Amino acid sequence: MSSRDVSRPICIIGLGLIGGSLMRDLVRHKQTVYGYNRSTSGTRAAVKEGFDVSDNLVATLQRAESDGAVLVIAVPMQAVASVLDAIAEHAPNCGMTDVVSVKKPVYDLVRERGMESRYVGGHPMAGTEFSGWSASKEQLFVRAAWVITYDYARDLEVDGLAIPAEWVSLFIDVCRMVAVTRAEAIPVSVRAHDEAVGRVSHLPHVIAEALSIVGDNGGTLAQSLAAGSFKDATRVAGTAPELVRAMCETNAAALVYSLDEMIKLLTQARNNLDTDNPNIEALVDAGHRAHTRLEARSGARRESVSPVKISSRPVMRLHPGGKGWVRQLVQAESLGGRIEVF
Amino acid sequence: MSSRDVSRPICIIGLGLIGGSLMRDLVRHKQTVYGYNRSTSGTRAAVKEGFDVSDNLVATLQRAESDGAVLVIAVPMQAVASVLDAIAEHAPNCGMTDVVSVKKPVYDLVRERGMESRYVGGHPMAGTEFSGWSASKEQLFVRAAWVITYDYARDLEVDGLAIPAEWVSLFIDVCRMVAVTRAEAIPVSVRAHDEAVGRVSHLPHVIAEALSIVGDNGGTLAQSLAAGSFKDATRVAGTAPELVRAMCETNAAALVYSLDEMIKLLTQARNNLDTDNPNIEALVDAGHRAHTRLEARSGARRESVSPVKISSRPVMRLHPGGKGWVRQLVQAESLGGRIEVF
Repeated sequence: MSSRDVSRPICIIGLGLIGGSLMRDLVRHKQTVYGYNRSTSGTRAAVKEGFDVSDNLVATLQRAESDGAVLVIAVPMQAVASVLDAIAEHAPNCGMTDVVSVKKPVYDLVRERGMESRYVGGHPMAGTEFSGWSASKEQLFVRAAWVITYDYARDLEVDGLAIPAEWVSLFIDVCRMVAVTRAEAIPVSVRAHDEAVGRVSHLPHVIAEALSIVGDNGGTLAQSLAAGSFKDATRVAGTAPELVRAMCETNAAALVYSLDEMIKLLTQARNNLDTDNPNIEALVDAGHRAHTRLEARSGARRESVSPVKISSRPVMRLHPGGKGWVRQLVQAESLGGRIEVF
Repeated sequence: MSSRDVSRPICIIGLGLIGGSLMRDLVRHKQTVYGYNRSTSGTRAAVKEGFDVSDNLVATLQRAESDGAVLVIAVPMQAVASVLDAIAEHAPNCGMTDVVSVKKPVYDLVRERGMESRYVGGHPMAGTEFSGWSASKEQLFVRAAWVITYDYARDLEVDGLAIPAEWVSLFIDVCRMVAVTRAEAIPVSVRAHDEAVGRVSHLPHVIAEALSIVGDNGGTLAQSLAAGSFKDATRVAGTAPELVRAMCETNAAALVYSLDEMIKLLTQARNNLDTDNPNIEALVDAGHRAHTRLEARSGARRESVSPVKISSRPVMRLHPGGKGWVRQLVQAESLGGRIEVF
């Protein structure tokens, strides 16, 4: 085991697109990993491929408790409460993280159960419109942002209290697990996460659903003429409806805020088109400038000629538990920066 | 020359993404093709690659007139009027088509000049967010819908008048040119085209601009977290602003109509989220069903295992000039179907 390996086994609860893809990456990098899948067919498929997977949740959690694994909760939002209850009963000493696409509803459930000292939240900003073990694949997370929440440490620091060593150790292991997937660990507080993903993830999902309907309203001719711009903008309407609802409905407040911005811009454009001299210069110029900035800031640089893409996210190297490290997390968050732990 | 070749040389006026890509396909299939490019650097680059390109519009049109070429107008909407004037002066007997993304404004200019008997409108539903000769490439149009308008024939038929043989011959050559690119020729009347592309092309452009702004409003953190759903939905905001404005502002009426549908759906979603029990089941279920239908109808079938993809658009084989052929075009239009001429 090298100093950059995760210091304990990893137990993934839920092996769909995200959990399954994480398991594939961890196995490929020879980390000890096993997991639970509710789906019997998914479990069978995973076992057939040689993965250490069970469809018995209690037995899986008991095993995690006995070997001190870190738990990764990779179930849809609506299943999180019951998984946390099972963890409280069968794996009461395990540290845990999650990959759910909203963070406040998860953190509320964690705090209701008094589990926050052994929880570090997570959310990989990666995925496809497909779901289930059969959709999982290696290297899904390469260069993706993987949000890591740290509200527990920040709140203790604000109160002048020490951060327990167990939490720091869990934080380090979650960062190392993220590094194995070649995602980029971005520290973000729960509230800021939910606001940001309301804009850049949940809003695009709502738009994809609405645009699909408007296109479909055009009948077979419009359907036949739909090309790249339409297909790309509606791709995620292919996501399972229950997953889209779980994301959007549990992040409703932030989503309403960004929807209001969107509706305002579209209404302005509509009014600027409904005149004798249609003119949407303001929208198009601002949109093009915003797009240029976003391209420059998100993910790998296009101009890189090397096959090893250079991230355009600023990097901060920090030593969890060291002096001022929580302030460093706050600073990285304000920049959308990634962290490397040592 | 085989019976499926275009029966005359092709002269492309404007060699950007669309005109340039068309030229590459035609050369590759040994059709006689030459063209004009306003950009001196674009012309130089094309000539250097061995293409027959000039930056002298008058000379190019005189050449087309002398060898009876069919003209392809591939300039932005705002340049169409001056190109038509130049054609009227220097190539008064050439048949012509175009690739402009709105059809009524072009057809209005054609009719103002009394040129409709030698015009068959066109619009390939393909492209990228890049523009200019340097963005052009072979096989850009494979399996794309290539709209061909036929209002001239339909209006004559309604009035019980004969359709001139020259127009029929031009229609056939435009269909054959489209076949060379492996696009699918879809007959559509001018008004129906503009309504449909308002929904499935211009609306996605407006949405991409607005969504880019909303994402950018989230600052560096939101920019850093933007992933696939956001990037896909905003990709076409990278298009040159003047091209987006030309498309949207010249198709304002149809675009306002589809924007109103979109704003209504987003406002309903917003209101259904801004409650104690957020619920967007209606939107997400309808959106997912619409997406499923659209996937089934647009372009190639996914399930095909053959490298030769099967089009899911219904096909109608017809003999231009034959009995009832214009009614067949009307029927194909109502189905979003493609035609093959013989």
